[in-house]
Amino acid sequence: MAKKTKRLAPTLPRGFVDRDAVEIASLEQMFHRIRSVYERYGFDPVETPLFEYTESLGKFLPDTDRPNAGVFSLQDDDEKWLSLRYDLTAPLARYFAQNYDALPKPYRSYRQGYVFRNEKPGPGRFRQFMQFDADSVGAPDPAADAEMCMMMADVMDELGLGGKFIIRVNNRKVLDGVLAAAGLADQPETSLTVLRAIDKMDRLGEDGVKLLLGAGRKDESGDFTEGAGLDEAQIARILAYVTADADADKMFDVLAAQVEDSEAGAQGVAELKEMQALFDAAGYARDKIKIDPSVVRGLEYYTGPVFEAELTFPVTNEKGQTVVFGSVGGGGRYDGLVSRFRPEPVPATGFSIGVSRLAHALQLVGELDVTEKQGPVVVLIMDKDQIASYQAMVAELRQAGVRAELYLGASKNMAKQMKYADKRNAPAVIIEGSQEREAGEVQVKDLVAGKIASETITSNEEWRAARPAQVSVKRGDLVAHIKSLLETDSADGE
Amino acid sequence: MAKKTKRLAPTLPRGFVDRDAVEIASLEQMFHRIRSVYERYGFDPVETPLFEYTESLGKFLPDTDRPNAGVFSLQDDDEKWLSLRYDLTAPLARYFAQNYDALPKPYRSYRQGYVFRNEKPGPGRFRQFMQFDADSVGAPDPAADAEMCMMMADVMDELGLGGKFIIRVNNRKVLDGVLAAAGLADQPETSLTVLRAIDKMDRLGEDGVKLLLGAGRKDESGDFTEGAGLDEAQIARILAYVTADADADKMFDVLAAQVEDSEAGAQGVAELKEMQALFDAAGYARDKIKIDPSVVRGLEYYTGPVFEAELTFPVTNEKGQTVVFGSVGGGGRYDGLVSRFRPEPVPATGFSIGVSRLAHALQLVGELDVTEKQGPVVVLIMDKDQIASYQAMVAELRQAGVRAELYLGASKNMAKQMKYADKRNAPAVIIEGSQEREAGEVQVKDLVAGKIASETITSNEEWRAARPAQVSVKRGDLVAHIKSLLETDSADGE
Repeated sequence: MAKKTKRLAPTLPRGFVDRDAVEIASLEQMFHRIRSVYERYGFDPVETPLFEYTESLGKFLPDTDRPNAGVFSLQDDDEKWLSLRYDLTAPLARYFAQNYDALPKPYRSYRQGYVFRNEKPGPGRFRQFMQFDADSVGAPDPAADAEMCMMMADVMDELGLGGKFIIRVNNRKVLDGVLAAAGLADQPETSLTVLRAIDKMDRLGEDGVKLLLGAGRKDESGDFTEGAGLDEAQIARILAYVTADADADKMFDVLAAQVEDSEAGAQGVAELKEMQALFDAAGYARDKIKIDPSVVRGLEYYTGPVFEAELTFPVTNEKGQTVVFGSVGGGGRYDGLVSRFRPEPVPATGFSIGVSRLAHALQLVGELDVTEKQGPVVVLIMDKDQIASYQAMVAELRQAGVRAELYLGASKNMAKQMKYADKRNAPAVIIEGSQEREAGEVQVKDLVAGKIASETITSNEEWRAARPAQVSVKRGDLVAHIKSLLETDSADGE
Repeated sequence: MAKKTKRLAPTLPRGFVDRDAVEIASLEQMFHRIRSVYERYGFDPVETPLFEYTESLGKFLPDTDRPNAGVFSLQDDDEKWLSLRYDLTAPLARYFAQNYDALPKPYRSYRQGYVFRNEKPGPGRFRQFMQFDADSVGAPDPAADAEMCMMMADVMDELGLGGKFIIRVNNRKVLDGVLAAAGLADQPETSLTVLRAIDKMDRLGEDGVKLLLGAGRKDESGDFTEGAGLDEAQIARILAYVTADADADKMFDVLAAQVEDSEAGAQGVAELKEMQALFDAAGYARDKIKIDPSVVRGLEYYTGPVFEAELTFPVTNEKGQTVVFGSVGGGGRYDGLVSRFRPEPVPATGFSIGVSRLAHALQLVGELDVTEKQGPVVVLIMDKDQIASYQAMVAELRQAGVRAELYLGASKNMAKQMKYADKRNAPAVIIEGSQEREAGEVQVKDLVAGKIASETITSNEEWRAARPAQVSVKRGDLVAHIKSLLETDSADGE
């Protein structure tokens, strides 16, 4: 009987993915552009480790029944719980508090890194994914929030998304003020339903939101969504608020009217007004950055201005509908987060970009280079006892700065070696058999020229007659020949 | 009574560290150089996620004899165990097997990323640390191992370590052959003691190793290490083997004699011989890459050639002794790792660089730039109602490609703002009070010139008289003035 070997299946846990060379290069190109904007704004990079004490991260404390709800957590040998970070903001708060005396205040930083969510993965939803954040800690003024919005807009421009995005801005205090003025200050559940309705303004429009504020709404498929059950005056107030931006000149007056005598509300309106003045002074028109009362974000988290970068070009969703691409990032002011570690109040504002989603968007609009780059020149092995001499060719080429490799596969047959060179996207292969060696020559096969020829030459006779792009060169001229060949290729590729 | 608030301590779990802007920049510079060598050799980047199925990782910790201890693991909701990768090789094996049909064979790749060890941290020992690996999977010939050694040597040269390193090469089969010839083939425990003794050759020399092969050795502190208990003939054989490289011309003969009729041993010697021929052909002298019979690495793991990059310059260790800096990376052939996933044999070879240790070494020899880079130009806030106008200055500067920021701290007093600019390493601050505004001017304070002046000017009177490096410029000339000032600074810095 044959020996039974249990072979492992080479798979990844759900929600985790690999990245190949093309993807790494295209993302690096994107990161480089984002970084250039952050740097220009005076932000410096900082990096924190992937683990933090669970209590430092905050709200997702592991419970005994299910220690991993939403977060990857494990217990250290001193019994303390550690978690993999689920965003880049909580670790920043810990870092800032830990280095409080040494850091400049305000502290402008950007951070790029993986975060983890122990959740059910789905299409476009991963358990490890990358965020690219920027934050100002210790900056209390709306000017810091305005800077964030302008920086997001500049990032979108730098990435080639000019005319295809809008930064939408709102203020948590204004939302709270309107809810208070509508008599909902002590009704958190109704408030949440109202906020959810407001959030649907861009999808459902005024009529849809009106239904959701009142008795409820039945959608096309017949599904019914329970409404907030507001009375007519309340509904009128919320609708007046949520449509305030229809008239930009009167918007702030409408907002001020709708928050009535709510102090927080009035403060929020003043902050938005100040931000608008800064956008105007710096030349960011309302088709780039826009105050939009329907923006609702992270209710448990933000304390003042909130903002969202939305891509406005159309895409087809899973249901076959045409929709705008939507959010690729956002943020806001979170004055409470650092204060958990410090005796004094530490105001902070920032935003986060979802890297995969932004890369996907850039690919859709043709602003991400996802072409395979040229591979190395491959030296073929014709005689196994001549490997040292082939190795010397490769070394010479590398010393001249040419990307080159020796074929090192198990099978040395010619077809396999050519197939390898092709798969590597090699610009050329170098062949030295005994005949060439005796003549002090090598054959150089130009695969780029060969590829073009094979697309135009149709018959075998023609092919053999043409012997496209294969030339003999003196062994001593090899490096110079290859360099000139690569220069021609790259000039053709322009 | 005052309200008692439990404040969190901002700390990291043991063995985890943050990285600031200077460290990030210096490491990036190092990575860039390493990558340039890998790329020149035809290697392509690939990235795998931080989690793998625990069973995919297997019991292959390369640098300990213990299986699987020291790994961060947790159970997924489908009961399967996940682990954070502890090296970059096991995930590569999984990746290669999973993408077997699509990948070129051999598959040359490099990978840079964090790995995790759930072990007791110590000085220079972290629980999250970075490795930078390169591997050829599907390459059976010693030429692939030789390529790894040459690439490691080129990396060291590229990093400015020329003349300060040696790549030491050995072969697991030769070690096995010598053990077999010494009659230890079936004595794994004694073999392990012998290998540990061989490994100490460079520290203890021939006499020390001789004691460890025999009855045992008492060190200077009086601690006794049990010996392998070999007889005289066995000891003579091992010593002849371990000192074989004393005479480079006869080394291979000595090795061949000491492995006697061990088939594996003879094969190992032949492989080393072939590698030496390739080093010679490519011009790598023995002061760069050297066959060294005392190299012992990863016993459970490697199946053929093994190699180690050692830095040879002296440093003082924790005990105050002068020692060579030592290993910054290594690797070898691991033909068994991928085969766990595949029906066919998949030979592979590669090496790993320990990033922190290498960076530390580069810093010691002055080959890593760890100076703080110049910060942004800072626009001060003199009048709070003029923020929009200050913001416009910043926007203009940024649009001209100048790194610039608006002071956004809570306190707007002048001393705080100047202290901030100083902490940010700002080259200049821009000041516009009401007087300047009326005159259509701004004050530009050149902090670089100011710093030089403050080091040479000693009295207050002199200082006030000199008013070093503060000039009035027309508001319209601001951007041009700042650009020329920065050009002067950077020219001075050359």
